[in-house]
Amino acid sequence: MAKEKPTILVVNDDGITAPGIKVLLEEMQKLGNVVVVAPDAPQSGMGHAITIGKPLRLDKIDLYEGVEMYKCSGTPVDCVKLAVDRIFKDKKPDLCVSGINHGLNYSINVLYSGTMSAAVEGAIEGIPSIGFSLDDFSHNADFTHTRPYVLSIAEQVLNNGLPKGTLLNVNFPHIEKGIVGIKICRQANGNWIEEFEYRVDPHHRDYFWMTGRYDWVDRGEDTDVFAINNGYASVVPTQFDMTAHHAIPELNSWSFDVK
Amino acid sequence: MAKEKPTILVVNDDGITAPGIKVLLEEMQKLGNVVVVAPDAPQSGMGHAITIGKPLRLDKIDLYEGVEMYKCSGTPVDCVKLAVDRIFKDKKPDLCVSGINHGLNYSINVLYSGTMSAAVEGAIEGIPSIGFSLDDFSHNADFTHTRPYVLSIAEQVLNNGLPKGTLLNVNFPHIEKGIVGIKICRQANGNWIEEFEYRVDPHHRDYFWMTGRYDWVDRGEDTDVFAINNGYASVVPTQFDMTAHHAIPELNSWSFDVK
Repeated sequence: MAKEKPTILVVNDDGITAPGIKVLLEEMQKLGNVVVVAPDAPQSGMGHAITIGKPLRLDKIDLYEGVEMYKCSGTPVDCVKLAVDRIFKDKKPDLCVSGINHGLNYSINVLYSGTMSAAVEGAIEGIPSIGFSLDDFSHNADFTHTRPYVLSIAEQVLNNGLPKGTLLNVNFPHIEKGIVGIKICRQANGNWIEEFEYRVDPHHRDYFWMTGRYDWVDRGEDTDVFAINNGYASVVPTQFDMTAHHAIPELNSWSFDVK
Repeated sequence: MAKEKPTILVVNDDGITAPGIKVLLEEMQKLGNVVVVAPDAPQSGMGHAITIGKPLRLDKIDLYEGVEMYKCSGTPVDCVKLAVDRIFKDKKPDLCVSGINHGLNYSINVLYSGTMSAAVEGAIEGIPSIGFSLDDFSHNADFTHTRPYVLSIAEQVLNNGLPKGTLLNVNFPHIEKGIVGIKICRQANGNWIEEFEYRVDPHHRDYFWMTGRYDWVDRGEDTDVFAINNGYASVVPTQFDMTAHHAIPELNSWSFDVK
């Protein structure tokens, strides 16, 4: 008896018309039955935000021939939640892939990224999940070199599953650098140094634009930043248990003086 | 020589007029010089979202006498970033406290919570940080019983610091239950089962409201959910390294067949 084709949920944070999600859904069509649920507008930097104070729209659209697609008014995480409850209903998809993001989501960016948060939400739902991102912010980013890697990594996850409570954060170098191989990594320590740009609007009121630079403090050769800088596709197994288990004994030694 | 009073950044996600932040800033005034930077409107469920596609407003306001306060048009994480760059400038605060949230942020809610994400952002900035939340969603929640615990926990963090790369996620039982003590815990495994409510608007278009129920799968007595259910204030050391370090060897055993 032939094995049933897997069902694959495709999401992103750049919005349903972004070129990156088209590349991702095309590769996933080689592996299974694809359902796309993506924001109707860009949602970069939305992190793990959910929409609780206002209602959500979910509308079926025909963007690419033969692909089941829905646009959603909410965040990337909303897309996954709506897909699981209202589209897949009783049967969860076999795989959830998010991206391919226009821009890197390595190091601390895993927290700010809507792309990664959608994949995290997939994993919370118990679905094997992967977030893909490319080192190219432009709308016309060239994803050609990522295609065989996206396919291979997704295939491995479908075949092997993922350790309980984990997902994958995959980043690719820019096409001009090419890809020399895959490196399993840890998330590099690093953070953004904010430099808000001050302006005055035509009504004489102050405002600020968020800008900043990434401070690469962690030069470890086992990090995702090192991998990308050296031409590798970085794969970081990522978890949503945020407990700092190693800190529990120290905290237990504190004495709280509650009056 | 007298020790200089510490500087304390107070943020939240319920908005600058929420009663919870007033309780928090009052307690912090007992420990140091307080600066409040909070959203100008409720931002619950915003997770680690940041505002990159539109400008931000930051305005000084006089809400409570003698307290330096700013309202911000952005997310809780934006508040911390703006505070560090534009208010504190070269000298980071000695402590960042977030809350007190109207509603629990235990278990998986650490990811969705704007309160906790603000504290996480503080920790990323290298500031000892704590998020506080109460098991009471109502605007008129009674925080009286939490006051001595908030003070004691903040005092301990000011005195001892926190292990590198960690912050604290503190949750309190409802006032009707009282607080029997403090329990250092891990984040309970659990997730929300979505149940989107379907409606039709006056223009005959579909929409959905996010609803759901928390699925408490992890009955471990070392979890934050167990602690709250048994009348303890739960304290979870939390980290922003999301690497699933234990999964790295398994992934290294995979063979990627890239064509």
